[in-house]
Amino acid sequence: MSENNRAFVLHAVKNVSLEDRPVPALRDEHDVRVHIEQTGICGSDVHYWQRGRIGDFVLESPIVLGHESAGTVTEVGRQVRNVQVGDRVAIEPGVPCRRCDHCRAGAYNLCADTVFAATPPHDGTLQKYYVVASDYVYPLPAHMSAEDGALVEPVAVAVQIAKVADLRAGQTVLVFGCGPIGVLCQAVAKAAGAAQVIGVDISESRAQFARDFAADHVFVNKTRTPKGTDPVDAARAVGEAIVAQYGLGEGADVVLECTGAEPCIQAGIFAARKGGMYVQAGMGRENVVFPITTACIRALTVKGSIRYTTGCYPQAVQLVARGKVQPSKLITHRFKFEQAEEAFELVKQAGENTLKVVIEGVQG
Amino acid sequence: MSENNRAFVLHAVKNVSLEDRPVPALRDEHDVRVHIEQTGICGSDVHYWQRGRIGDFVLESPIVLGHESAGTVTEVGRQVRNVQVGDRVAIEPGVPCRRCDHCRAGAYNLCADTVFAATPPHDGTLQKYYVVASDYVYPLPAHMSAEDGALVEPVAVAVQIAKVADLRAGQTVLVFGCGPIGVLCQAVAKAAGAAQVIGVDISESRAQFARDFAADHVFVNKTRTPKGTDPVDAARAVGEAIVAQYGLGEGADVVLECTGAEPCIQAGIFAARKGGMYVQAGMGRENVVFPITTACIRALTVKGSIRYTTGCYPQAVQLVARGKVQPSKLITHRFKFEQAEEAFELVKQAGENTLKVVIEGVQG
Amino acid sequence: MSENNRAFVLHAVKNVSLEDRPVPALRDEHDVRVHIEQTGICGSDVHYWQRGRIGDFVLESPIVLGHESAGTVTEVGRQVRNVQVGDRVAIEPGVPCRRCDHCRAGAYNLCADTVFAATPPHDGTLQKYYVVASDYVYPLPAHMSAEDGALVEPVAVAVQIAKVADLRAGQTVLVFGCGPIGVLCQAVAKAAGAAQVIGVDISESRAQFARDFAADHVFVNKTRTPKGTDPVDAARAVGEAIVAQYGLGEGADVVLECTGAEPCIQAGIFAARKGGMYVQAGMGRENVVFPITTACIRALTVKGSIRYTTGCYPQAVQLVARGKVQPSKLITHRFKFEQAEEAFELVKQAGENTLKVVIEGVQG
Amino acid sequence: MSENNRAFVLHAVKNVSLEDRPVPALRDEHDVRVHIEQTGICGSDVHYWQRGRIGDFVLESPIVLGHESAGTVTEVGRQVRNVQVGDRVAIEPGVPCRRCDHCRAGAYNLCADTVFAATPPHDGTLQKYYVVASDYVYPLPAHMSAEDGALVEPVAVAVQIAKVADLRAGQTVLVFGCGPIGVLCQAVAKAAGAAQVIGVDISESRAQFARDFAADHVFVNKTRTPKGTDPVDAARAVGEAIVAQYGLGEGADVVLECTGAEPCIQAGIFAARKGGMYVQAGMGRENVVFPITTACIRALTVKGSIRYTTGCYPQAVQLVARGKVQPSKLITHRFKFEQAEEAFELVKQAGENTLKVVIEGVQG
Repeated sequence: MSENNRAFVLHAVKNVSLEDRPVPALRDEHDVRVHIEQTGICGSDVHYWQRGRIGDFVLESPIVLGHESAGTVTEVGRQVRNVQVGDRVAIEPGVPCRRCDHCRAGAYNLCADTVFAATPPHDGTLQKYYVVASDYVYPLPAHMSAEDGALVEPVAVAVQIAKVADLRAGQTVLVFGCGPIGVLCQAVAKAAGAAQVIGVDISESRAQFARDFAADHVFVNKTRTPKGTDPVDAARAVGEAIVAQYGLGEGADVVLECTGAEPCIQAGIFAARKGGMYVQAGMGRENVVFPITTACIRALTVKGSIRYTTGCYPQAVQLVARGKVQPSKLITHRFKFEQAEEAFELVKQAGENTLKVVIEGVQG
Repeated sequence: MSENNRAFVLHAVKNVSLEDRPVPALRDEHDVRVHIEQTGICGSDVHYWQRGRIGDFVLESPIVLGHESAGTVTEVGRQVRNVQVGDRVAIEPGVPCRRCDHCRAGAYNLCADTVFAATPPHDGTLQKYYVVASDYVYPLPAHMSAEDGALVEPVAVAVQIAKVADLRAGQTVLVFGCGPIGVLCQAVAKAAGAAQVIGVDISESRAQFARDFAADHVFVNKTRTPKGTDPVDAARAVGEAIVAQYGLGEGADVVLECTGAEPCIQAGIFAARKGGMYVQAGMGRENVVFPITTACIRALTVKGSIRYTTGCYPQAVQLVARGKVQPSKLITHRFKFEQAEEAFELVKQAGENTLKVVIEGVQG
Repeated sequence: MSENNRAFVLHAVKNVSLEDRPVPALRDEHDVRVHIEQTGICGSDVHYWQRGRIGDFVLESPIVLGHESAGTVTEVGRQVRNVQVGDRVAIEPGVPCRRCDHCRAGAYNLCADTVFAATPPHDGTLQKYYVVASDYVYPLPAHMSAEDGALVEPVAVAVQIAKVADLRAGQTVLVFGCGPIGVLCQAVAKAAGAAQVIGVDISESRAQFARDFAADHVFVNKTRTPKGTDPVDAARAVGEAIVAQYGLGEGADVVLECTGAEPCIQAGIFAARKGGMYVQAGMGRENVVFPITTACIRALTVKGSIRYTTGCYPQAVQLVARGKVQPSKLITHRFKFEQAEEAFELVKQAGENTLKVVIEGVQG
Repeated sequence: MSENNRAFVLHAVKNVSLEDRPVPALRDEHDVRVHIEQTGICGSDVHYWQRGRIGDFVLESPIVLGHESAGTVTEVGRQVRNVQVGDRVAIEPGVPCRRCDHCRAGAYNLCADTVFAATPPHDGTLQKYYVVASDYVYPLPAHMSAEDGALVEPVAVAVQIAKVADLRAGQTVLVFGCGPIGVLCQAVAKAAGAAQVIGVDISESRAQFARDFAADHVFVNKTRTPKGTDPVDAARAVGEAIVAQYGLGEGADVVLECTGAEPCIQAGIFAARKGGMYVQAGMGRENVVFPITTACIRALTVKGSIRYTTGCYPQAVQLVARGKVQPSKLITHRFKFEQAEEAFELVKQAGENTLKVVIEGVQG
């Protein structure tokens, strides 16, 4: 194929450029090739650009960035049954090995051999064409925009968090963080019949967005802890203040921690009811001071959520298609493909008014 | 009733004495009165004696100590159906309110209004007679000794830990701590068909006891961390060493933490496999440095276990009756009722060779 | 107390009358007395009236009928904390023994010693005053009508069915039956974020009500099975037709059977997807011809739902208070207390346009 | 490869023969080739031979029979990591598609595209060499015989049944049927810490084997139902007699039905306690008269078990390796490969003393 495949490539730390690469071929009869139409930028993309690594994943050779994408199918392998050429699809960016115990047990988010877009050494989706296994693309209904399709990815992250939390109708759900994942968790919880969804943030503008988006209430923490206060005591006070303010009785049924910030983690434990559920979704410091005795005495269940599992993408597509979650409302900035670096700069600055940034795919 | 009811009373911190009290009457038609025959001493009994409080429970007026007991039923209320006068029974020491949401939902271990023996302001079982609701006493088979009956209590604690851990046959189970609760967890895990049960301790003598008692292997941690090592790194190294030594692959299926010691908590998280289960059963420092990112990325489930729930006592009785768990092997010292203070002194000293101390009930 | 307590009493089969009884006194310090304001009539009430028995429960002495009620608290015992005199409440009509293993394990719906209103030998709520344990009454918000309060009962039945079905957001839910319980299940499923809720009935008018009430679609089965067709084959065809018509792929995620009719039970099994959930909530013939091999090969989970458990009433109150479920829309007929027998006659006739009948409480 | 690959081929109903086929080549880099050493015969093998079909699987072209096998690895693909040439392995006979929702969710036993040995149109293992994906072979410890290795298959079936039943330590388990799957379920339940395992059969000799093998007790049903008795009433009486005889109180915690016989299914429902678990594992008539009201009122969970899922084979290997389950004790007859048809004849006759028949692999 002589056609160009323009790509946004990370060569080394802080070193990106647009380049033309060969159009990728299908690798087997189950693959599809997708013409990418929209791509959201995620903090992890920026992290690789600025630091070159996340945990054990280290940039050692150039990779294409981007992993939140939707587009149109342009080629399908002979065994593909779920989509046809011309179908618009959301792309789940991690294809697991299908053979390890985690994959075989349905926990493919734990597969160590997943080919994950834009995670070294694997190329991401910020290119004209992306090739992926057909069972990891999901058809979009006609009325759903490519932007919404691209943002199915963070919705699917929120769906997995809700699944890990074993969320049930009628529960009170407390969500720390009103960034993209936080507000999407709030919307997913509402759509799942939560009795009351309460967001927590330190930014009034993010809080206001969250209220407009899905949350019943948002607690804006303005606490200035007096010098010499034990930080855990301070966090406990915040947790207890939230419980008191919203009449949560013994505490929230479910706490979803989407910031990774140490004080939020601590406050979250103190805000959970006895026998309650706490899910760690945000990532920050490796180790934090943790109120283990409270977690123990209250018989909490503390779980970590990572990526997505089977059913998350279909459920996310459906939530967006039915208008229950409207992720394109999160988009604050839009860029052409040629402006990709500019888009990354903006996300790096992390302004209070930058919620979600998307990059249009290569035309033609 | 003019009969004496001799009791071992905690008047104030470090102030205990034997005294004669009135024989307690049944409070309603569901109660039974038990002539106590054997009582085990638990760390919490000693804690109240030495400190006068545990958490929010503060000694404000004298209480009878003791809560691990078995004895013979001497009186039954009119509505009692499950036992008769003369039956030998194990006593579950906490009777919940039966009316709060936790009780109604089957989580009575979380009931805030539980009448728990020897927890202020409630009297314990170190008296000649103890009155308790009949559904909280459990008949012992004829071949089971009163000592084994008294030690059904810590066995029931271990059964609840296993229940919280959702223990299944075929799992690898790593148990931190080879004290009474630790070794009983090891035995309960073996009885539940665990593929491999590995204990961890720092004492070679406790390790040897654990090997003889139930564990397949015990890891004796002799690590001396070099000055300047980050304590979490050191704990990680211990966790990984255990995994490597016993061929646990990605890590243990289940970690039961029965020490409450910070380095054990940390090592335990690093020794759990992706998607694995970690249960906090031991209590130590209120707050610890906790590898939250590892817990999150590995998608662990971290749960706290406290007391017991429905079915724990019957299952514990049955495990002891069938010889699957032999708690009386833990007994290192036996005392007469008049020597109760001496027994408490011994437990307080916490010698490496003091595992379980029991006090015989008042005769006659 | 010299006040009258007018009651609607079932003396014997087909023999009811209004009579004045003494006002019931609180039996203990946890009880409350409620002035009944509205009572819904349920098929079981009519069944006792016409047949004098349901299963092992046999009318041997007169009982007051009625068990779906709301009213105002007129007296509270000394230990009551959750309500005060003057509070309007919904009454959960079955108070369990609190002491058996089922109660202690949180499955009080299985308690054999439950005092259930209008189940022999226990009096029901069709009297001016009803005395009940305070933890079995639930405060109603000011804006909620007594009619809605009375109909919290069938909503709670539907909430329990959804709980037994382990209903999750995003599922496809197929509900056999568009009577009161069927349509309430449909509404509860929608409120829990079901992706698609499909009702099934043979009556077009009930189907239309269901569509207006909550269901996304209702399948009206008009099939006339040709003579000689095997009934199970016919039911299979219906099940498969439903699956095909609504694009359910392999079948519905969840089937809730609310009719008890043999063909519905059979069709429901064939309409469930592999690995799916089927809940039997309706009661009809004791024994039915059941496609056990299909249930086995598809690895279905088939469960029975009965009454309610902890949390059902609070969740039902909340669903009604938030307008997510509007049970008073089911009311087709209203009667004064003095017309109670007339109301029962109407329910007995079971006209297609009789959905829910309520009886106003005794005034004053 | 010029070597011969002798195979036992089913050409058509009741038409089998030995023939020499080409040695099968690896299909991809994850495959292994196994030299088959022992193969157990299962009822389904005989069923295809006699009837040519099971359900939707119809013999349309010749297939090799056999699916319970162990052998030695003779070739491995380049990507194979878990085994090496020379390793002795048990073979899991069904390799799923890895791409459908069931596979991705961990329920690969429900995959419609599984390549299952000796299920038309797929060849089975009764040939000298068998090629299979490497993650579906499991290394055997040195001390484990090839016969035990072959019989890992029915042990894995029993492990899956126990998994479906959510079996826990301390439960009472009632197993209908003392054929191979029945007695293996009994042994697996014992190994999982069941408090009491009770078998049921109509044959005294099978009962005696079961008692010797693993069961605590076996109920031999000799009931002759008087003419005119309703069959469900008769089955209920049997269920209740079992409960009474073994002191199961309200009923067994878990019922595992391994016969598929209608009276056993009925008796099993009546023998389960309220809130209990019933698993249908045996297959018989498509439809049976089923006590649905009892299942509903008792709030039973009725599930079907089919094949195996991730973890079953490793756990089965481990149970056999540790001597907890000894499947080779079931072997009543052994045949050379050249006598395969004779072996099948014997199984077809289904004599009371024929429990398990194995066929030795082709030598050399």
